[in-house]
Amino acid sequence: MGPFERHVFVCTSGSICPIEGDSTLVHARLKELVKQADLKTSIRINNAGCLDQCGHGPMVVVYPENVWYCHVKVEDADAIFHEHLVGGRPVERLIYRPAKPGPNKLRKEPILPSKTPAAVNLMS
Amino acid sequence: MGPFERHVFVCTSGSICPIEGDSTLVHARLKELVKQADLKTSIRINNAGCLDQCGHGPMVVVYPENVWYCHVKVEDADAIFHEHLVGGRPVERLIYRPAKPGPNKLRKEPILPSKTPAAVNLMS
Repeated sequence: MGPFERHVFVCTSGSICPIEGDSTLVHARLKELVKQADLKTSIRINNAGCLDQCGHGPMVVVYPENVWYCHVKVEDADAIFHEHLVGGRPVERLIYRPAKPGPNKLRKEPILPSKTPAAVNLMS
Repeated sequence: MGPFERHVFVCTSGSICPIEGDSTLVHARLKELVKQADLKTSIRINNAGCLDQCGHGPMVVVYPENVWYCHVKVEDADAIFHEHLVGGRPVERLIYRPAKPGPNKLRKEPILPSKTPAAVNLMS
């Protein structure tokens, strides 16, 4: 068994989650809430790389429960923290149910603007 | 439930794991093994930020089992893959048993060389 009761991963270094809803703000808000509640001994919030579900993000995963959240907004971080991480009840309205096992990418990695003008929209 | 049977996180972006044993090579080797075995649908290997156990790394965590490995060398990646991720039996000799719940840091974040000469050794 690991050192934490709940271990949360937020995709912040993939190439899509951070531009779909600013997953870095979700990560920062979760960390802030854990710190404010003095729960660093039991809950760990981590940055993670791409979770292979591009287009459903920002994605947040809570282990060991194996509960995945999709399209998480910064204000949803408060619900995830209070209801799930502290209260133990996953936030039903945010739960991600993958269409199939494994990768589920709706969007490809963005192509550099120098290669195609269409990519400019993706980055904006 | 999430889209993967096993989800593996390797600390590659903390400031200590990557210089203690080159966790980026451990991450790369695990990804290579998953790809070679065509197991991308069931096993996901992810980069992760600091796992708050600095000095015990390179750290590798396997969920949903909540099995943590410490001081993982690149050659240990093969054992973790074959014995645990495929075989379902955690690699006992590598298991990390934290001294206490929560953060367990033996080492502090390295100080920039410009601030103290001692930090040079840490980076070498």
